[in-house]
Amino acid sequence: MTFASRPIQGKIQCFFGMKKISVLLIAFIAVLFSCENNMQTTATPQKLSPERPAYALAIHGGAGTILREEMTPEKEKAYNTALDSALTIGETVLKNGGTALDAVEQTVTWLENCPLFNAGRGAVFTHEGKNELDASIMDGATQKAGAVGSVMNVKNPIRLARAVMDKSAHVFLTGRGAEQFAAENGIEQIDPKWFFTQERWNVLQQMLQEEKEKPGKQGLLNAPAGKNPDGKFGTVGCVALDKNGNLAAGTSTGGMTNKRWNRLGDSPVIGAGTYASNDACAVSCTGHGEFFIRYAVAHDIWALMAYKGLTLEAAGDWVVNKKLVEKGGEGGLIAVDKDGNIALPFNSAGMYRGYARPGERKVMIYK
Amino acid sequence: MTFASRPIQGKIQCFFGMKKISVLLIAFIAVLFSCENNMQTTATPQKLSPERPAYALAIHGGAGTILREEMTPEKEKAYNTALDSALTIGETVLKNGGTALDAVEQTVTWLENCPLFNAGRGAVFTHEGKNELDASIMDGATQKAGAVGSVMNVKNPIRLARAVMDKSAHVFLTGRGAEQFAAENGIEQIDPKWFFTQERWNVLQQMLQEEKEKPGKQGLLNAPAGKNPDGKFGTVGCVALDKNGNLAAGTSTGGMTNKRWNRLGDSPVIGAGTYASNDACAVSCTGHGEFFIRYAVAHDIWALMAYKGLTLEAAGDWVVNKKLVEKGGEGGLIAVDKDGNIALPFNSAGMYRGYARPGERKVMIYK
Repeated sequence: MTFASRPIQGKIQCFFGMKKISVLLIAFIAVLFSCENNMQTTATPQKLSPERPAYALAIHGGAGTILREEMTPEKEKAYNTALDSALTIGETVLKNGGTALDAVEQTVTWLENCPLFNAGRGAVFTHEGKNELDASIMDGATQKAGAVGSVMNVKNPIRLARAVMDKSAHVFLTGRGAEQFAAENGIEQIDPKWFFTQERWNVLQQMLQEEKEKPGKQGLLNAPAGKNPDGKFGTVGCVALDKNGNLAAGTSTGGMTNKRWNRLGDSPVIGAGTYASNDACAVSCTGHGEFFIRYAVAHDIWALMAYKGLTLEAAGDWVVNKKLVEKGGEGGLIAVDKDGNIALPFNSAGMYRGYARPGERKVMIYK
Repeated sequence: MTFASRPIQGKIQCFFGMKKISVLLIAFIAVLFSCENNMQTTATPQKLSPERPAYALAIHGGAGTILREEMTPEKEKAYNTALDSALTIGETVLKNGGTALDAVEQTVTWLENCPLFNAGRGAVFTHEGKNELDASIMDGATQKAGAVGSVMNVKNPIRLARAVMDKSAHVFLTGRGAEQFAAENGIEQIDPKWFFTQERWNVLQQMLQEEKEKPGKQGLLNAPAGKNPDGKFGTVGCVALDKNGNLAAGTSTGGMTNKRWNRLGDSPVIGAGTYASNDACAVSCTGHGEFFIRYAVAHDIWALMAYKGLTLEAAGDWVVNKKLVEKGGEGGLIAVDKDGNIALPFNSAGMYRGYARPGERKVMIYK
């Protein structure tokens, strides 16, 4: 089911590439929710009521070295407004009785279309100057999942991941095969130029220049350095709880600037970047993907709740602020549990994030 | 370090494609260990001593509908001999003080070269009549990992996975990019004809014929049916504990016959098909990959031990014989814990498997 948010989605455009109607809508939303005043330090929003809320929604737009002193007021406002608009997408689905799965798919689709974030349009460039996109989605009710890796001509990888889940017997498709599946299943394909943004292109050119000037900086066999060279781990993600108590999670990314060899991070790996199970929680991660794969971070949050009885807050805090910090894994995650609790822990300087429940709504960037 | 097993590996050839010296060696091994008499029903071998053994090793060659009544004595002997030879490879490394990681890599390499198993030479064919290979390896000491998906010209995908782990900043490389990484790092590449076996080719032709005759059997949008159509889930894997208490796990596969769209199963997914951490266990899975991804099976075994305090046997039994059975996920796994306990649970009719510890050695096929 598609619900009322689809028409809205067409109108709420990202801060960049906006149309007239979008300007009005964004201005309206900005005033309505005063999103730029909503920044707060808590990673674990408290619920207004101990009962399960009618819905709960959280989003992220990547974690990393996001420093207040390096941000212009205009850029900060653009990010806050975009996050807030994304929340509107998901909230509209959930308020209208839609499923957590639809809320996640549509919210991530919106974030993919927004060039501010490293996913879909605005994805970072590979070493060869291409955009290779990864995404995954998981339904907490059935624990069915779909994931795609290294697709280059699919406008919304999260929609393709959803189609893999719904329309194939498989979970994980990659590369040209995944694109063929997209073609066979009516998933919109697009000229790869769509993904281009000058800012991301410039970052790649800087990195290639640095590699030329300081070959030592190439790291192991020309691999990008361990730290993500554009200073943050761009990813987008969404987790949701709907009125029926169903959970869902989705994640999408362009990966790391200057990546090679069809590298996949944690975003398309179920258990690493994305996990959802109605008996505990839904999780979407962002960060240095290799660490999130090695510690199966999204599944680890689930396991700490399911097997050790930890709260969502304690599980998120332990994995992100203790385990990953000790191992050197930078990043964060968003999670919602079956009771509507939300956790947004991160161990980097900042994480683009937000959440909404009936009567509550926040977007945040810094610690 | 490579240890004394490399020369042996060159000589112990698989039952098919054997040379004179191999015949003698295999005959010697067969007599020495009477492997065909070693079949037993227990999935959890008991240790001879409560103390940690000097080493522990377990292997699998796939799980599925392996029925005694469909097996010829010759074929059964060939499998048992091959499993036993594989154990010799790993045991030689471990007896000589080698690492669990080297034992796993070399044992899986040997299994990949053996055309009896669906990995490397002998891999099943995709819908398009190609062989697409997936593999992963994980070091329990460092929790570093390497994985490759959909490679087509790499003789031993497990060696490429090891190189990804050791020589790149990444965990997961796929497709043509992974092959390029292989070329840049001296990993042997080979004419894809090397992977061809008539038996696997015939299975694909049968399936394609059946699809033509009964289009309804194509399943959702021409996807291969949920059940693996060649009757078993071919994969190979190895887990090991070395004298220093380090654990490692590795898995390699050709996937499912008639697979499409560059489908990946659980074998290259760290947390699903492969996991290792010195604080608990090392796990390698085989089965209907989509289920193993959705339940992050390998990491789940680890989590049940680490967070719920279950024994290896209880964790393996619960996941394989309860959780997966309830969800419809056919397959099994091999696992070794930090104390040298071994578990080999499976919920299918059979699983090619074996294990070795000082003074113990078994190979088994059926329940």
